[in-house]
Amino acid sequence: MSLRHLIDLDDISPSVLDEIIDLAGVIKENPSYYTDHCHGNIMATLFYEPSTRTQMSFQTAMLRLGGKLIGFTDPDNSSVSKGESLKDTISVISNYADIIVIRNSFEGAAYAASMFSKGPIINAGDGGHLHPTQTLTDLVTLSYEKGRLDNLTIGLCGDNKNGRTVHSLIKSLSKYPNNKFVLISTPELKVPKYILDCLKANGSTYKFSESLEESISELDVLYMTRIQRERFTCSDEYETQKGVFVLNAEKMKLAKKDLRVLHPLPRVDEITVEVDDDPRAKYFEQTEYGIYARMALIMKMLKTPSFAPPERPLATHTSLTCKNVRCITQTENYLPTLLKETDGELICKYCDHSN
Amino acid sequence: MSLRHLIDLDDISPSVLDEIIDLAGVIKENPSYYTDHCHGNIMATLFYEPSTRTQMSFQTAMLRLGGKLIGFTDPDNSSVSKGESLKDTISVISNYADIIVIRNSFEGAAYAASMFSKGPIINAGDGGHLHPTQTLTDLVTLSYEKGRLDNLTIGLCGDNKNGRTVHSLIKSLSKYPNNKFVLISTPELKVPKYILDCLKANGSTYKFSESLEESISELDVLYMTRIQRERFTCSDEYETQKGVFVLNAEKMKLAKKDLRVLHPLPRVDEITVEVDDDPRAKYFEQTEYGIYARMALIMKMLKTPSFAPPERPLATHTSLTCKNVRCITQTENYLPTLLKETDGELICKYCDHSN
Amino acid sequence: MSLRHLIDLDDISPSVLDEIIDLAGVIKENPSYYTDHCHGNIMATLFYEPSTRTQMSFQTAMLRLGGKLIGFTDPDNSSVSKGESLKDTISVISNYADIIVIRNSFEGAAYAASMFSKGPIINAGDGGHLHPTQTLTDLVTLSYEKGRLDNLTIGLCGDNKNGRTVHSLIKSLSKYPNNKFVLISTPELKVPKYILDCLKANGSTYKFSESLEESISELDVLYMTRIQRERFTCSDEYETQKGVFVLNAEKMKLAKKDLRVLHPLPRVDEITVEVDDDPRAKYFEQTEYGIYARMALIMKMLKTPSFAPPERPLATHTSLTCKNVRCITQTENYLPTLLKETDGELICKYCDHSN
Repeated sequence: MSLRHLIDLDDISPSVLDEIIDLAGVIKENPSYYTDHCHGNIMATLFYEPSTRTQMSFQTAMLRLGGKLIGFTDPDNSSVSKGESLKDTISVISNYADIIVIRNSFEGAAYAASMFSKGPIINAGDGGHLHPTQTLTDLVTLSYEKGRLDNLTIGLCGDNKNGRTVHSLIKSLSKYPNNKFVLISTPELKVPKYILDCLKANGSTYKFSESLEESISELDVLYMTRIQRERFTCSDEYETQKGVFVLNAEKMKLAKKDLRVLHPLPRVDEITVEVDDDPRAKYFEQTEYGIYARMALIMKMLKTPSFAPPERPLATHTSLTCKNVRCITQTENYLPTLLKETDGELICKYCDHSN
Repeated sequence: MSLRHLIDLDDISPSVLDEIIDLAGVIKENPSYYTDHCHGNIMATLFYEPSTRTQMSFQTAMLRLGGKLIGFTDPDNSSVSKGESLKDTISVISNYADIIVIRNSFEGAAYAASMFSKGPIINAGDGGHLHPTQTLTDLVTLSYEKGRLDNLTIGLCGDNKNGRTVHSLIKSLSKYPNNKFVLISTPELKVPKYILDCLKANGSTYKFSESLEESISELDVLYMTRIQRERFTCSDEYETQKGVFVLNAEKMKLAKKDLRVLHPLPRVDEITVEVDDDPRAKYFEQTEYGIYARMALIMKMLKTPSFAPPERPLATHTSLTCKNVRCITQTENYLPTLLKETDGELICKYCDHSN
Repeated sequence: MSLRHLIDLDDISPSVLDEIIDLAGVIKENPSYYTDHCHGNIMATLFYEPSTRTQMSFQTAMLRLGGKLIGFTDPDNSSVSKGESLKDTISVISNYADIIVIRNSFEGAAYAASMFSKGPIINAGDGGHLHPTQTLTDLVTLSYEKGRLDNLTIGLCGDNKNGRTVHSLIKSLSKYPNNKFVLISTPELKVPKYILDCLKANGSTYKFSESLEESISELDVLYMTRIQRERFTCSDEYETQKGVFVLNAEKMKLAKKDLRVLHPLPRVDEITVEVDDDPRAKYFEQTEYGIYARMALIMKMLKTPSFAPPERPLATHTSLTCKNVRCITQTENYLPTLLKETDGELICKYCDHSN
């Protein structure tokens, strides 16, 4: 089956997702077979917001397939500073490159870009909204390291309220049978209600915990994230609490022998350096799986025929505009308003905000 | 015939220009044939002044020929910030790369660079002076879209006074027989006298217009450019006038069925977004033609043998220096003074200014 | 013989050094033979401190071998700005790239990086400490231009006190028999004592000179370096002295016919532009030799099997830390303290400072 763009991981059918995950594993076993697989193809990495790590992982994936690269990483050096619209930039760059990877601080930017591109668009992060290839990386890592994506007890420890990678991983894993989630955080940093709704809808088991030490022994997977200091109500609170959510060698002693520890990186101090040498720590290997995941994705997308013109839906509710100040429609005013009614709310198709 | 450097489009003989335009068309028809044509060659893009669009078009052209890239885009990150001369930078980089593309804010910089380079130099813009590959792109686009470069009625609408791409296109097209020019602008933004002299010398027909609406119906080609707000004498003037030179769907209704609309981009608001979907709008395709034009140029230049040492003319008028403050000779004081007497004036060979 | 990392040129055995120098010469004679030698390999150039010249020379070398590139040049655009440790960056990037070139303003950074990298690390400059590929370039240039690295009279003129390339070159050449050194500088800018100790230990002849004019006639090689204005005690001193250490056409008249002039570049005004056309001036060719030197080095290092885990020595003197404020251990506090006792002093293994 084909895959035109990757804006939101939810857009991918389970069978296509499985194909990509399987292909990533095949590439890992025999990477040199793919050295010239995308020979003659060009990828553009348009990073309106710098993220060296993510940009280099896409670049490495394309280079390991024999492809070539153009792009920018600094908005001030791009034509953007001359006031060019996203539409015009994409219209031009899709004449240069066969596939475009875009990162932008506005929510819905990658979806908007897909309306004007001849070739496939990959969302490499649109503000705090979506970052589907991080979750794809997490799934490939687990699939390979645990041998399965079901029947797992998954602990998520850190900032469960604000971490978009946490939400995206829970949504994806809740679709597989018999997964149990242990949500480890301060009361203030619990997952939002829509994630709980998703867990309930998929029939997944979950529970809350305020202690990593108490919960670690039952986990098959521990997904750590950083808690930013400014998330705590006061500095005292931070000093008291921070140790509770730090993974160290002592807590690792309580964990199963086949636990796998993941982290989207960069890490600050939520995992101590001594844990790095524990064979159950897989957060550095995770970045290697990220290369295979992106290689599989790129191969899949470049194989999809792109003769059809870009899809541009007709505006709905032309008298309204999305109220989210971080929505791409705020700055790119030629974009059609796209609001869909769900449970009595008007949800923006670009940024998923309720209006 | 061979082509060592491309500093000014006027330096290219008509037969070589025709060869390049024809080759660009051949590449467009069968791009994959050229995938490895420059395998093993390196291009350096030295952008002392950022221009992501232009830099990416050269990079794409070289990559589509199987070549490789080095370069910089930010003068502060280059050795330049350590006070290195253009001569030294070029002397070193021409040991690294087989072909050099240079953009610099000083007029005559590319010509100066060509004195010290082992390999070919392409001028990608030297201040407000010359930008020959934009005009080459325009010619390739017209040649393909109209099937000819003669017997055309060409409208040029916008800032005809300051637009270097406008001047260069008029100069090139006036060399072909039976072209008519309609110069559409405010009285303040008319083309300079030397362009009118050029039109007269070549026997081209031209007229002035202050209304795009009145002129559009007779045009085969419409070349739009941006009018910067600061070009108007006052803000009121700008608000009154700006609509007159904006291309919209309504004006397009008055135009011929086979009109072709071009624009060097980036566009701001001188063409409304609704025009983009009109099949006569070719400004986005124009950027694709720009890739073929540059591929043809690079192929031509890399085939030219470069065993001969760089040509360094002897200084004339050693007691004088060019008075143009934006001339490259102002900062690079080892450059020989090169003034030639034309019609009683001393013209600088670097920047074409009268002294 | 194999070569895992290149941190300090002193780490390379004489036989491996000879192999690399010889291979560089072979590549120079037939560069196209190596066009695809590293096909499928990726080099990361991690420049925490910008140095366009050095970065482009490594990039060119890798591209001329058919390899590919990732990297960054601007610390503010990297994950570093999110507070990531050098350990984490290297742990990730060594999953992306087969070989890493690192430049960092902290002394010992490349050595620290080598502790965490799966693949080879090349030091492209760690503060004012080491820059081994510049010296490798100098040796390749001399080996080819003079046909030998022994029985040479080598003049070193300029800032002999602070120039790390001067010190490194003296150390390397003093290992070859019958080399004589003429150390040309102001009394204030003489070479430091440890260099004189090294010359004595190797039995090399040396003398001091305060006049380039008086010394130039006896030289086989003249290695020029820049004297920064701020090195002089006062501005008057600078004006009086600077001409004495400037190489111009007049002084070149006094020199041998087979003198070779080298300079690590960038040059400011310590060599006048007129000297550039003298066939004995080899500082621009030197940058070309630098490409062959780096190509040979990369080939050698990529052939070395890297299955062994990174070597991480155990901490010594755990109660102490290095006192050098520019040592990498100052900011990366997970690094083991490594002090070795030499002649009653505690020398830091990272930065070579005495504690």
